[in-house]
Amino acid sequence: MEDVYKLVEAESANMEGPEEEEEEDDPECNNLHHPLLKRNRTLSSSPLAIVGAKVSYIESLDYEINENDLFKQDWRSRSRVQVLQYIFLKWLLAFLVGLLTGGIATLINLAVENITGYKLLAVVRYIEQERYLMGFLYMAGANFLLTLVAAVLVVCFAPTAAGPGIPEIKAYLNGVDTPNMFGATTLFVKIIGSIGAVSAGLDLGKEGPLVHIGSCIASLLGQGGPDNYRIRWRWLRYFNNDRDRRDLITCGSSSGVCAAFRAPVGGVLFALEEVATWWRSALLWRTFFSTAVVVVVLRAVMEYCKSGNCGLFGKGGLIMFDVSGVSVRYHVVDIIPVAVIGVLGGLLGSLYNYVLHQVLKVYNVINKKGKLHKLLLSLSVSIFTSVCLYGLPFLAKCRPCDSSLADSSCPTTGREGNFKQFNCPNGYYNDLATLLLTTNDDAVRNIFSINTSSEFNVFSLVVFFALYCILGLITFGIAVPSGLFLPIILMGSAYGRLLGLAMGPYTNIDQGLYAVLGAASLMAGLPFLDAHPEPWMRNITVGELADVKPAVVTLNGIEKVRNIVEVLKNTTHNGFPVVDCGVTPPTGSPNGATELHGLILRAHLILALKKKWFQQERRRTEEWEVREKFTSIDLAERGATIEEVTVTKDEMEMYVDLHPLTNTTPYTVVESMSVAKAMVLFRQVGLRHMLILPKYQAAGVSPVVGILTRQDLIAHNILSAFPHLERSKGHKKGH
Amino acid sequence: MEDVYKLVEAESANMEGPEEEEEEDDPECNNLHHPLLKRNRTLSSSPLAIVGAKVSYIESLDYEINENDLFKQDWRSRSRVQVLQYIFLKWLLAFLVGLLTGGIATLINLAVENITGYKLLAVVRYIEQERYLMGFLYMAGANFLLTLVAAVLVVCFAPTAAGPGIPEIKAYLNGVDTPNMFGATTLFVKIIGSIGAVSAGLDLGKEGPLVHIGSCIASLLGQGGPDNYRIRWRWLRYFNNDRDRRDLITCGSSSGVCAAFRAPVGGVLFALEEVATWWRSALLWRTFFSTAVVVVVLRAVMEYCKSGNCGLFGKGGLIMFDVSGVSVRYHVVDIIPVAVIGVLGGLLGSLYNYVLHQVLKVYNVINKKGKLHKLLLSLSVSIFTSVCLYGLPFLAKCRPCDSSLADSSCPTTGREGNFKQFNCPNGYYNDLATLLLTTNDDAVRNIFSINTSSEFNVFSLVVFFALYCILGLITFGIAVPSGLFLPIILMGSAYGRLLGLAMGPYTNIDQGLYAVLGAASLMAGLPFLDAHPEPWMRNITVGELADVKPAVVTLNGIEKVRNIVEVLKNTTHNGFPVVDCGVTPPTGSPNGATELHGLILRAHLILALKKKWFQQERRRTEEWEVREKFTSIDLAERGATIEEVTVTKDEMEMYVDLHPLTNTTPYTVVESMSVAKAMVLFRQVGLRHMLILPKYQAAGVSPVVGILTRQDLIAHNILSAFPHLERSKGHKKGH
Repeated sequence: MEDVYKLVEAESANMEGPEEEEEEDDPECNNLHHPLLKRNRTLSSSPLAIVGAKVSYIESLDYEINENDLFKQDWRSRSRVQVLQYIFLKWLLAFLVGLLTGGIATLINLAVENITGYKLLAVVRYIEQERYLMGFLYMAGANFLLTLVAAVLVVCFAPTAAGPGIPEIKAYLNGVDTPNMFGATTLFVKIIGSIGAVSAGLDLGKEGPLVHIGSCIASLLGQGGPDNYRIRWRWLRYFNNDRDRRDLITCGSSSGVCAAFRAPVGGVLFALEEVATWWRSALLWRTFFSTAVVVVVLRAVMEYCKSGNCGLFGKGGLIMFDVSGVSVRYHVVDIIPVAVIGVLGGLLGSLYNYVLHQVLKVYNVINKKGKLHKLLLSLSVSIFTSVCLYGLPFLAKCRPCDSSLADSSCPTTGREGNFKQFNCPNGYYNDLATLLLTTNDDAVRNIFSINTSSEFNVFSLVVFFALYCILGLITFGIAVPSGLFLPIILMGSAYGRLLGLAMGPYTNIDQGLYAVLGAASLMAGLPFLDAHPEPWMRNITVGELADVKPAVVTLNGIEKVRNIVEVLKNTTHNGFPVVDCGVTPPTGSPNGATELHGLILRAHLILALKKKWFQQERRRTEEWEVREKFTSIDLAERGATIEEVTVTKDEMEMYVDLHPLTNTTPYTVVESMSVAKAMVLFRQVGLRHMLILPKYQAAGVSPVVGILTRQDLIAHNILSAFPHLERSKGHKKGH
Repeated sequence: MEDVYKLVEAESANMEGPEEEEEEDDPECNNLHHPLLKRNRTLSSSPLAIVGAKVSYIESLDYEINENDLFKQDWRSRSRVQVLQYIFLKWLLAFLVGLLTGGIATLINLAVENITGYKLLAVVRYIEQERYLMGFLYMAGANFLLTLVAAVLVVCFAPTAAGPGIPEIKAYLNGVDTPNMFGATTLFVKIIGSIGAVSAGLDLGKEGPLVHIGSCIASLLGQGGPDNYRIRWRWLRYFNNDRDRRDLITCGSSSGVCAAFRAPVGGVLFALEEVATWWRSALLWRTFFSTAVVVVVLRAVMEYCKSGNCGLFGKGGLIMFDVSGVSVRYHVVDIIPVAVIGVLGGLLGSLYNYVLHQVLKVYNVINKKGKLHKLLLSLSVSIFTSVCLYGLPFLAKCRPCDSSLADSSCPTTGREGNFKQFNCPNGYYNDLATLLLTTNDDAVRNIFSINTSSEFNVFSLVVFFALYCILGLITFGIAVPSGLFLPIILMGSAYGRLLGLAMGPYTNIDQGLYAVLGAASLMAGLPFLDAHPEPWMRNITVGELADVKPAVVTLNGIEKVRNIVEVLKNTTHNGFPVVDCGVTPPTGSPNGATELHGLILRAHLILALKKKWFQQERRRTEEWEVREKFTSIDLAERGATIEEVTVTKDEMEMYVDLHPLTNTTPYTVVESMSVAKAMVLFRQVGLRHMLILPKYQAAGVSPVVGILTRQDLIAHNILSAFPHLERSKGHKKGH
């Protein structure tokens, strides 16, 4: 305990001193929005955080229902018809989300397959004429241009469209907002950028971007269009809150997964795993509905394209990624090689994660230097990829076609089929070219194909595996929309097939199935979200956390304007407890009781100031006054800052009645609550603020001891404030 | 508000009066365990409730971690090795649950297919000899005996083994315990009873019972064996708590679903939907592991049986229920008939639910009359079923075999195949006999079979549908293990096929697929668990709930033995707030503060009395004293009652230090919290007790206003205490 108090002293000394700039190098610290009084130093770090591969300015979302007087009035005044409107609209939006996501997914697929298809056809024509250099220049040039389009769009118009976007969606669904994630520009850039990047033959997939695209569509539909051109449809006002937006975006992300993998149940399971900190069974059905719509749309388009109206799409090998063609034939004894694949794959996946993390750190340094550096990095990767894809097949030996195969089209000179001729004479094929000079989807299909146990030799597979390990590591961090799934599937399938060759004599599993299993096992190395409280969190109470934080800033139920303005200017808190003094409780001593009225949000305080909700005397307002001044739509508005508000000197001396704007039902814990259990409540209910109440009941005790936010419950923040917990943890490990 | 107070008066008047017997006819009221002072009359009803089709004595479970001093000591003293032991054991148990569930599922399938197979073979032999009466007597007699075995076992040894058991498992996973649900006797009776009931040709499935069997296995494994012959393995002590048992039973129920339908993902989704009020991502993986083990076991046995070592199992039509043989060929335009099937099926399903409910009410009256009545009811249903199954095929016309079919085995005289000869001449078959004189699984397979659009005529399908509607309604409530899935699949497939015949000219979907869709749509009529708070719950605060309940009974941190004994004898509460008076808080007035220490469970109070944790003077005990007296295993013990405890007169005047046994971190809400939000917390975190704190802070105010339990939050209970809420709800509807 002494350690704690020492720490508090040290911290408070630090707070008063001028040496605040010493943390300049800390990536989580910015002096962009530097508060005048940096009160929340100890536990809560600044709102900058690393989400995914990017550093973003983040804010928490209000998933809790804000039960203030206005909400209750609005809610009570909703008629039966309006409730039905709301329910109808929820399902209609779920339908539209599925429809649009399915449509855009098809569009992306069509574009990618056609662009890549015509590009590869041209390259193959040059190779047939043995004009190898021209072939290379054509391919590298096309890839360069496509990467350029994608990268310029991302760098100049929507930096948030880079990468897969899945980490940000995970964060959003768990209550942390990254700005500009779900805008119309982001959506547009993501679609075009994804088409460009995938067509450019870069080692990245369209799966992650599709998830992001689904979420963008959901968000835009919910708010009625792009930020500046919203449809102000009255019905949509029901969705003007974080809670309903979250539900919609859950549908959107599931639809995206479903569109990427054509797996409706998989889409729902994805959503479920990502948002495992809360779940509602009603959402399960709406999500299933959305994914079902996506499947129907995809099916309809594929049927339409079968008749040959979609260019190169659906012809030859260029159909959507689909492993259902792999028939699974196995016996129980085959469980041993499968287990070996699984364990090794998991370890490899973790190793890959670790190395990728290191590469991303280096990339972050480069990307920070400016837009040109970002562009150059992307283009270098593109050129390196082109060189490898075109050059490496020359190293492979030509292999004679297996005449026992019924497939008469060996070698294949066109694009389709498993046996590419490339630089080989007739009757021979180049197995490495089969894997490299094709779309990524086709490469996967070729390597997954069954009854081809002798098609690829070990050398080609090793080269393929090594190449995609390197490409996967250097491609992920560049400024284009990219998914991590496909690179890992490519790597994993090569790994599985290699292992299959090694174990060949001992099992009768098909090589193609080995490739599928290898890909699946490597996927398992990806980290997943874990919302468990750590065991040492039982050793510390929320009261102790509150002690190391600066004293909580409470407001009176009827507060002076000057005080509100000062509090807003001098703190960065987003919620303030509202307390009434000198009330008479129904029991106990009649004088001097304080009453906890609830919690008020910063946004609502600013709203009160903006709308000049002022009065000369200290009095409670009537319901009709409130209803005249505010609508429930006002309450949903966000993003206003205290700097935008101008208050005159006279107004400074007036009063604001905060009662009608206060959420009277915030979730609370007693100060003796352990951090572990407080965290369970925080996560399960999806909170933004949690009030800490005193365990003592007596005159003069403040009714609120402190306030907890997401950042206060982050293990790293707690451990840096309470180093002795870290020690006891280490001590335990030493046992 | 006046209504409320009037009600309270009326209630308190009622409490003192002698007219307590007026509610005798209420099925939820019992005078078995009549408390001396029936304090909790207003909101909490008695612990008797209707779960599924049965009236049971229920109790809530403690899924919350009880963080008292003893727990913390035990937890701190766990070394790294012990933590690893615990994790290893968790996965080992998940493996064993899967293994045993898979094994027993196979055993049941083997037994059912062999018993039914030999029975039907004998019947067919009699029919071939045209000894129709003997055939009927043989079949009815065999069915009668099999039903008798199942019913006698259930009625005499394990009444909880009747029915599917799924409602009770749902309840358990959501925190409500039904006694004797997961015992060894129940497991044994369920296995044998299920074999008997299914072999007897009754209209019920083994799916529900398999889920129950999986849960029983999980529960028994977790506690180390049957109640009286437990293995006292030291490692198992980690699982001696409600929380870990719940996790295990979740694995068990998923394994059961998986074993019934051979669908690992389906099993996990089932668990997820059932327990949607809470979920942990870590559990998702353990559940997947269990279901994967089940699939491997089933696969292994089926491979072994292919070589013909399992009697009639796997030969001919008698393989496990599996619709994967139905290949799905459809076009986008076919979505319209599919939607029609879905909507009609959902409506039919709901209607079926309603009628079934009425039938169950009648059955409840019969079953209450005694064991003999239960037996007779079951046997009557068995005889009725035999008569219908054997008699109805005589009504169907013989149909000539379609010579265009490649299948040379028409008509089939043995058991297998789609075309049963029954009473027809050679070259003809009886389509109704094909559906009725077979196992239920085979009937489903026959009706699902594709490319058989002209096999069944409308008359036969109508008879089949009507018969299974009636059988489904009268069979479910009898005293044998029964699942509701198969009857609904049978009904639904007939409905789908009928609709398919009607729509035949307009679509090109196969008749078999129509049957599958019909079955699926009827399933959707089954109700699912919904944990949403109702909207009107926002209009009432937990403080108002606490007001209509009798005053909360609090205990002092160091309490007199006499008081504890009296409180335990005179109340039925399971948790009591512990409050310390006259402490000095760190801030505020130094005199007269009261401190909320936490919540103590009834079980732990009884433990303290039993272990004579008494002392002469009022003092706090030391840690070593507690450690000497109690172990963490003591804390997990359940079921002791105050009547078993004897306290001498001298001891009555001594004191008990409750602090070390008190859970210092109960979840709390402020009295101004709305019931809707309190319910979200209660459900999401999985609580048993929730303390209500005052919103006022002043001397003399009690630190605890009330205590909420599951029953206080049941909509029905709240509405009966606050009729004006019901009215405002109705008012809204009228709008």
